[in-house]
Amino acid sequence: MKVAIAGYGNLGRGVEAAVSAAPDMELSAIFTRRAPDSLKPATDCPVLPYSSIADHAAELDVVVLCGGSATDLPTQTPELASLVNVVDSFDTHAKIPEHFAAVDAAAQAAGTIGIISCGWDPGLFSLARVYAGAALPSGADYTFWGRGVSQGHSDAIRRIRGVVDARQYTVPVPQAMERVRAGEQPELSTRDKHTRECFVVAEEGADLAAIEEAIVTMPNYFADYDTTVTFISQEELNREHAGLPHGGSVIRSGALGLEGEFDTTIEFSLKLESNPYFTGSVLTAAARAAVRLFEDGQTGARTMLDIPPALLSPLSAEELRAHLL
Amino acid sequence: MKVAIAGYGNLGRGVEAAVSAAPDMELSAIFTRRAPDSLKPATDCPVLPYSSIADHAAELDVVVLCGGSATDLPTQTPELASLVNVVDSFDTHAKIPEHFAAVDAAAQAAGTIGIISCGWDPGLFSLARVYAGAALPSGADYTFWGRGVSQGHSDAIRRIRGVVDARQYTVPVPQAMERVRAGEQPELSTRDKHTRECFVVAEEGADLAAIEEAIVTMPNYFADYDTTVTFISQEELNREHAGLPHGGSVIRSGALGLEGEFDTTIEFSLKLESNPYFTGSVLTAAARAAVRLFEDGQTGARTMLDIPPALLSPLSAEELRAHLL
Repeated sequence: MKVAIAGYGNLGRGVEAAVSAAPDMELSAIFTRRAPDSLKPATDCPVLPYSSIADHAAELDVVVLCGGSATDLPTQTPELASLVNVVDSFDTHAKIPEHFAAVDAAAQAAGTIGIISCGWDPGLFSLARVYAGAALPSGADYTFWGRGVSQGHSDAIRRIRGVVDARQYTVPVPQAMERVRAGEQPELSTRDKHTRECFVVAEEGADLAAIEEAIVTMPNYFADYDTTVTFISQEELNREHAGLPHGGSVIRSGALGLEGEFDTTIEFSLKLESNPYFTGSVLTAAARAAVRLFEDGQTGARTMLDIPPALLSPLSAEELRAHLL
Repeated sequence: MKVAIAGYGNLGRGVEAAVSAAPDMELSAIFTRRAPDSLKPATDCPVLPYSSIADHAAELDVVVLCGGSATDLPTQTPELASLVNVVDSFDTHAKIPEHFAAVDAAAQAAGTIGIISCGWDPGLFSLARVYAGAALPSGADYTFWGRGVSQGHSDAIRRIRGVVDARQYTVPVPQAMERVRAGEQPELSTRDKHTRECFVVAEEGADLAAIEEAIVTMPNYFADYDTTVTFISQEELNREHAGLPHGGSVIRSGALGLEGEFDTTIEFSLKLESNPYFTGSVLTAAARAAVRLFEDGQTGARTMLDIPPALLSPLSAEELRAHLL
C-alpha cells in the first residue's frame, strides 16, 4: 500500500514511524503547507507541497491527515476524500456528526473511503465504550485520562501575560478510579475525577501570584478542577517535561442477571510514553483498513466503530482466527 | 428480533436473562434435548424439543447455541446454520479453523449467518489482542485468567477416586502481572503466570494424601502449576464456592518510534461475578449482529473479529457516533 502523510508535526512523525515499520506499506510522500525544503523528515521520504496532492493522488492508496481538528481537518478531510482514500484523527467530539456528513458526501461522490476520528480517544476508547456497552447493557461508563500532557491546556497557560512556557498534566484521581473499579457506580463531578498539574516558566520579574490566579480561575480549562501551579526554569521544563506521555482508562461497571445479581466490571487502559506516536500508529492501522474497504468496493465515511477489527491487522483473517482468536 | 436458545444450562440461563433485557429482542423459545417439561426456565419462555427446531426455524431470526464445545457445537452449529442464523461460543482454540469451515459451508449453502466463538475468551479477549496488535505492532501479548472457577479443572478433580465434589480456581500471579504492566516483556513459564487453588470434598475415610498427590501431579491440568489443595465439607463448598466468577487481563506491551523509543502498554481486563451470564450477554450482542448481517444480505461464518463493532450495540450508528465515539 502506498501511503502519504499530510502535515508533518508530532503526529506526522508518529505516522512516519508506524508506516515505516509496517510490512505491507510504503511511505510515498509527506505533503506540507510549509516550504518543503524546511522539513527534515526522520526517514528519506520525499517532501512535497500540500498543493500538489491532486497531482499525486492517482499513485497513492491512502493519505493520512495529520493536521489539527480546529481548523485543518474540517476542510482538508472532505477536500482530500474527493481525491483519494483518507484517514484522520478529528477529535472535536461535538462536531463529529457534522464532520462525518461532510466526509461522507465527498467520499461517496468520489468513490473513496474516509475514516475519521481514529486514534485512542476518539478511537480505541470509543471501541471500549461500545463493546462494554454491548456486553454489559445495564451499567455506567467512566473515562479517566492521564497522567498525561494536555497540549490544549498547556497552550492556554502560554497565552497568559508573563508566561514564557508551560506544560500541563491531566491526572486522574486514584480514589475515584478505585471506587469505580469496586463497582460503586459513584456520581463523580469534574473535580472528583481529575486534577491538573501545571509547570510554568515565567518571565523574569513577572507577578507569579497573578499568573497562578489567572490559571486556576480560567473558565472551562481549570476553574472546575483542583489545579496546582509550580514555577520552574526553562531548563528544568526542557529536561523534565519534554515528552508527551498520556494514557487513561475506560471503565464500565454494572450488573447482569434477571435480578441484576452479578456485578461486572470491564476496563480498557493505556499507558503511552508518546501520545502522538501512539495516535499515529492507530491512524496507520486505520489507513490499512481504508485501503481494504476501498478494494472491497465500498465508499463513504466510516469511524473505527464501523470497521471489522480484522481489517486493521496486517495478518489475514485466517491467521487471526488460528493464532489470536 | 425473535431469538431462541438451544441448550439450557448455566450459559442458556445467561442468554435468557440478556435477551429478556434487550430492548430490540424477544425470547421466542428454549430448545432442549431433555424432556421439555423437566425444565424450569427463569422466564415464561416456552420450552420445546430440540428435534423441533426445523419446524420453528422460519419464525426465528437467530438461535443462540448454549451447548458445549467438546461434543455439542461441532455438530449442532453447522446443522442449525443450515436452517437459521446462529451464534455459538465454541472455545476449543485449536479446532476453531475446522469449526469455522464447517459452519461457513453450511451457512453459505443455506444463505444464513453463523457467528462462532463469541464470549470473552475467545471473544472480547481476542478483540483486545487484535486491536492491541494492530496499534502496537512491535510488542508481546500476555493473557492472564482469573481469579476464577475453571469448570474443566473442577471436573477433572471430581473424577479422582474418593472425591465427592470440587471447585478449582485459576489465579494469576500478581508479581508476573506487575512485571508485564511495567513493560519488562518477561519470558514467563506456565508456572510463572498462574497458580491453581483446589477446594475438595472427600468421601469419609478417603486417603487425603493420595487425593492431593493425584491432583498436583495430574498432567496437563495441574502438574505444570503450583497447586494448593484444601479439603472442606460439602456444606462449606456449597456456601462459599457456589458461584462461577471469572475474569482476567490481556496485556500487550511494546514500543513505538523509529528507534523503539516510546514504551507503550495496552490492557483490557474483566472482573465477572458470573462467567456464564457474561458469556451469555456477549452471545446475545453477537446474535443482534448476526441478524443485522443477514438483513444486509450477507451469508457465511464470522467471528467477532469480522464484525463491525457498531452492529453489536442496540444503538444506531448515528447514536454511537454522537454519544460514544
